[in-house]
Amino acid sequence: MISVGIVGGTGYTGVELLRLLLRHPQAQVRVLTSRTEAGKRVADMFPSLRGHTDLEFSDLSLDLLKQCDVVFFATPHGVAMQHAEELIAAGTKVIDLAADFRLQDLAQFEKWYGMQHSCPTVLKDSVYGLTELNREKIKNAKVIGNPGCYPTTVQLGLAPLLKAQNQLINTQSIIVDAKSGVSGAGRKASLGMIYSENADNFKAYAVAGHRHHPEIVEALENISGQQGQFDQLIFVPHLVPMIRGMLSTIYVDLTEQGQQTDLQELYQSFYQHERFVDVMPANSSPETRSVRGANELRIALYRPQPSKLIILVAQDNLVKGAAGQAVQNMNLMFGFDEAAGLNGIGLLP
Amino acid sequence: MISVGIVGGTGYTGVELLRLLLRHPQAQVRVLTSRTEAGKRVADMFPSLRGHTDLEFSDLSLDLLKQCDVVFFATPHGVAMQHAEELIAAGTKVIDLAADFRLQDLAQFEKWYGMQHSCPTVLKDSVYGLTELNREKIKNAKVIGNPGCYPTTVQLGLAPLLKAQNQLINTQSIIVDAKSGVSGAGRKASLGMIYSENADNFKAYAVAGHRHHPEIVEALENISGQQGQFDQLIFVPHLVPMIRGMLSTIYVDLTEQGQQTDLQELYQSFYQHERFVDVMPANSSPETRSVRGANELRIALYRPQPSKLIILVAQDNLVKGAAGQAVQNMNLMFGFDEAAGLNGIGLLP
Amino acid sequence: MISVGIVGGTGYTGVELLRLLLRHPQAQVRVLTSRTEAGKRVADMFPSLRGHTDLEFSDLSLDLLKQCDVVFFATPHGVAMQHAEELIAAGTKVIDLAADFRLQDLAQFEKWYGMQHSCPTVLKDSVYGLTELNREKIKNAKVIGNPGCYPTTVQLGLAPLLKAQNQLINTQSIIVDAKSGVSGAGRKASLGMIYSENADNFKAYAVAGHRHHPEIVEALENISGQQGQFDQLIFVPHLVPMIRGMLSTIYVDLTEQGQQTDLQELYQSFYQHERFVDVMPANSSPETRSVRGANELRIALYRPQPSKLIILVAQDNLVKGAAGQAVQNMNLMFGFDEAAGLNGIGLLP
Amino acid sequence: MISVGIVGGTGYTGVELLRLLLRHPQAQVRVLTSRTEAGKRVADMFPSLRGHTDLEFSDLSLDLLKQCDVVFFATPHGVAMQHAEELIAAGTKVIDLAADFRLQDLAQFEKWYGMQHSCPTVLKDSVYGLTELNREKIKNAKVIGNPGCYPTTVQLGLAPLLKAQNQLINTQSIIVDAKSGVSGAGRKASLGMIYSENADNFKAYAVAGHRHHPEIVEALENISGQQGQFDQLIFVPHLVPMIRGMLSTIYVDLTEQGQQTDLQELYQSFYQHERFVDVMPANSSPETRSVRGANELRIALYRPQPSKLIILVAQDNLVKGAAGQAVQNMNLMFGFDEAAGLNGIGLLP
Repeated sequence: MISVGIVGGTGYTGVELLRLLLRHPQAQVRVLTSRTEAGKRVADMFPSLRGHTDLEFSDLSLDLLKQCDVVFFATPHGVAMQHAEELIAAGTKVIDLAADFRLQDLAQFEKWYGMQHSCPTVLKDSVYGLTELNREKIKNAKVIGNPGCYPTTVQLGLAPLLKAQNQLINTQSIIVDAKSGVSGAGRKASLGMIYSENADNFKAYAVAGHRHHPEIVEALENISGQQGQFDQLIFVPHLVPMIRGMLSTIYVDLTEQGQQTDLQELYQSFYQHERFVDVMPANSSPETRSVRGANELRIALYRPQPSKLIILVAQDNLVKGAAGQAVQNMNLMFGFDEAAGLNGIGLLP
Repeated sequence: MISVGIVGGTGYTGVELLRLLLRHPQAQVRVLTSRTEAGKRVADMFPSLRGHTDLEFSDLSLDLLKQCDVVFFATPHGVAMQHAEELIAAGTKVIDLAADFRLQDLAQFEKWYGMQHSCPTVLKDSVYGLTELNREKIKNAKVIGNPGCYPTTVQLGLAPLLKAQNQLINTQSIIVDAKSGVSGAGRKASLGMIYSENADNFKAYAVAGHRHHPEIVEALENISGQQGQFDQLIFVPHLVPMIRGMLSTIYVDLTEQGQQTDLQELYQSFYQHERFVDVMPANSSPETRSVRGANELRIALYRPQPSKLIILVAQDNLVKGAAGQAVQNMNLMFGFDEAAGLNGIGLLP
Repeated sequence: MISVGIVGGTGYTGVELLRLLLRHPQAQVRVLTSRTEAGKRVADMFPSLRGHTDLEFSDLSLDLLKQCDVVFFATPHGVAMQHAEELIAAGTKVIDLAADFRLQDLAQFEKWYGMQHSCPTVLKDSVYGLTELNREKIKNAKVIGNPGCYPTTVQLGLAPLLKAQNQLINTQSIIVDAKSGVSGAGRKASLGMIYSENADNFKAYAVAGHRHHPEIVEALENISGQQGQFDQLIFVPHLVPMIRGMLSTIYVDLTEQGQQTDLQELYQSFYQHERFVDVMPANSSPETRSVRGANELRIALYRPQPSKLIILVAQDNLVKGAAGQAVQNMNLMFGFDEAAGLNGIGLLP
Repeated sequence: MISVGIVGGTGYTGVELLRLLLRHPQAQVRVLTSRTEAGKRVADMFPSLRGHTDLEFSDLSLDLLKQCDVVFFATPHGVAMQHAEELIAAGTKVIDLAADFRLQDLAQFEKWYGMQHSCPTVLKDSVYGLTELNREKIKNAKVIGNPGCYPTTVQLGLAPLLKAQNQLINTQSIIVDAKSGVSGAGRKASLGMIYSENADNFKAYAVAGHRHHPEIVEALENISGQQGQFDQLIFVPHLVPMIRGMLSTIYVDLTEQGQQTDLQELYQSFYQHERFVDVMPANSSPETRSVRGANELRIALYRPQPSKLIILVAQDNLVKGAAGQAVQNMNLMFGFDEAAGLNGIGLLP
């Protein structure tokens, strides 16, 4: 049984981490911090937790956090990097659900997050926590940059193509038309997020540039080993009037090699041993409700034209796209069964 | 053609007033003020108005407002009372959609709104704008306190009983179980109002006390002429995951006289000449979508026990419960057809 | 490990039973029947189950069902009563989630369900499965009539009052204003249930009479031991545009004894050992999302007037109001920990 | 004042036609037919119409319909073509909101709609009712095939490019990622359309082939005059958990000529005199709620890469995508102001 700390447990990724970790067979949440809610019982803020925990929020105390085996940062961008060095020096592992350890390119980080990175050396040793693709590195990591929700769908949606021996696709004409539930924007008082502005409405947003774009590009470069080959990628996020759920519709141009490949077979084979990635049969349509609350990601392929591939990828943005994947990474880091605490079935209706 | 000013046009009642007044055959919006948005085109804030108006927000200028025939205050509570006296002195009529001129009882106003009333003499001359019940006074009013959304449903739902010659109900055992869409809470950045806190959720709120409670009691006293007879009224508001719409389910104990009265006939007769109040046939269920966007209020009656009456009342909280009724009052104040600008049909699906 | 059969697994209670039972540590679903889907893999119908089960629907075969230790009927009303006798003769226990074994009053059953009861003797020996109130009988039951969703909230909301030694309330003036998510109406093709008829809408329904009304009355009589004392109960259900969730707002008149009783203390004490009933602190508002997907029911009390009590009761209609309570009953019937398979935490956002 | 008939007024396009036509200054609905609801008052089926009409559904009688100046068919595919010939022989104009007169290619019609066309000669003389592009032909048409909702967004979204003198885009690499509210599927009892299957969910559908695909291709060929140049077009529709609204995100590859063109200027100039098409400023995001209930279509352009153009197109699928455009066509056919009856402002919140 390891002891766990969560910094910034008042957002949606925080409460989602609690939902998963309070039922984890080998982990116990010992410390839960909040700048604003210290002294408050977490179950008073999140009534779904009533009866399941007596935890109280405490002020952020590094002394307390250092006694934990692992600390999750469910904070705004820029917090984890302030404390990571001291924590790992104390032997505490760090999993950041914000962006501090996602991008290795410091210039991109500063451009998109509007701050300088305060610990580039820790960043260099950190591991990008896309579990299925970086499993071995994660097992030995001290600091994990947990992937963004959109980038998780794009990477798992494209990895079988990019990892193939032959060049199956044109990497410079990828289009990602992505759709997310509103919880992806977090839990904060903001006019743009209130109910009456989002219900019964649909729109694109951040079309001119979204922070997950550079993360997607860097990650695809790493997966494929092809630097500079994804500069033309198009990424357009949309906001869906639902709480949870994310669907990315990815359009890809196939090379001659790609057109001659059995792509359904390629995907099934690539993910055959993965417990949380489901390659659905041809002509399926993955619905976001099929993964509601579950650490699962479903993929379906379509070939509308011989040279075109459409990849549909669905996940729960708060689970496989955030807290669930973070727990999956924790499991690897501590030698647990990768699925420990993550076998819940989704709420279909 | 009268000229109209709107103070505080950045909330939902503001944009709803604009939607109605921009199509009004005898009114023209000339001034639109906002503390925070001066200089901005209103259509840039509310894209549904693109192509329908070139209006810009201006700073609140009494000089400009005094040139209007009527000024609507779609502001937070406490703003209209600061300016009403000066405006009416200049011959400009005032319609306040907040609470400044709803309650004649100053102690109640101060208790529930947390501020002293700054112009009690204007308040005394103001008229409570429940159109169907105060029509004659409204025609000659200089200042209108436009009713709250919940109180509108309760008053129109109970008026036929309270205006009857005989005592038809026990006034001390009325229960109002009311349900509102989220837009009733206004357009402001607030954690409790964000999408992911309200969608796919239902709850009661303000059970221990809601500002509309004293307004309901005072109004029912005025309708019935029975002071102190509604002190036991129970009012429990609930929040429905929808943008617009309000349904009040009102439970009433009938007296012997009430039990012997044809109540369906009483209601139909009471409202037979009203264009915006619809008494539905027995065993109907008024749905909020049947009045979406329309200045209508629908009522249906049930008699589950001989001594019990259930009154269902549905309206769009932003229209008949706010902006629509305000325009209805304006029409009366200026001698227009009461339905001018208000004949739009609701969006059923 | 017991073996379980589910008859009629294509509705929402069916898939919800599967969600719970596929993770139950001591039960294994062996048989799943459907008249219309025999031969189809359940995961092809309910994609949330992909990767969690290889079960296929089979035709309803009593031979197969008799090999199960317990059979759940998640069928329309009238199916369980056709097979219950044969199953219990074979030693198989029966838990019916429809209405066949809820009402002991045969006349009421026939009136409200439009069919004659085919096995009154089995009915007489059956036990009404409101777990917290009938625990001992359930342990030894062969046939369980699992309660309706609305009746569950009303019984658990009123039981502390009705079980008290003194008469605390006027049983003849109870009003239940209940609100349910749309999944309560089941999974069937029906014009009234389609998305565009229900989204962004609120209405009362079945005001003139709902099948759960006689069940509530009979149950309250049994709890209190007072026959004929609930004839005046008012029950008005409403439909909320959300998938899951139910909130009942119950209005009660207190007797002198009731007014002098510490009711908050009474409720807390009554439910102090219950794992699935949560009496919240005074002035709380139980939200349906706080129990989304969880086998929990939350209660809060208000005293708006000395003689009035308001009881708010929230649950997930598909869990504590249906499948979860059924599993809770199964656990008792087989001597398992009552919470086995039911410790999942709800999805708050 | 012309007299209007509506065949099949029980669906969403039917009630939407009524909402618009009952307020039309120069048209009066005289006949409203329904196979199933003859004799029923339309306001009893659609309570939003209570107080606005006494119309009753009648059986489909050609004698009655022939007395109308124009008949709208808001019926399933295949009905209008049975009666169009007889109606136009009697001098009655026909506007079909189904697909009978959309596709000139009979083979495509038969393939996608599963029936033979019964009046190819009428079809040949019919006019495709995309108002802004076919205005002159519509003025003289006897039979109008009113466009599908998706095709309306794609045509108006691409027309400025296709009508340009130079070849601005690669017509063979267009991708249309489209999203629609649920009302687009009509008003019928169907399991896939019920609330609990669609709320809080997002999915693609008909990815392998949608009936609007051939309509889009044929229409783009006609607009551009380039036969066979759109065979590679990709069209992927998605279902959004909202009632009304449609957003198409269109991805286009620009030619050298296209890259050197000021496309924002091109679009603004192309639509400068259109009252119902709004080219928004650069970097805008058209939201579906900005056109809720309004006969408007909003377009915004993005240039994420020099050679790529993204076109966002929003409309209300029931208005500009169906009934509103049909009324717009009627106005042209009878010489009315094109905006008559169509100047309502959308319901933003």
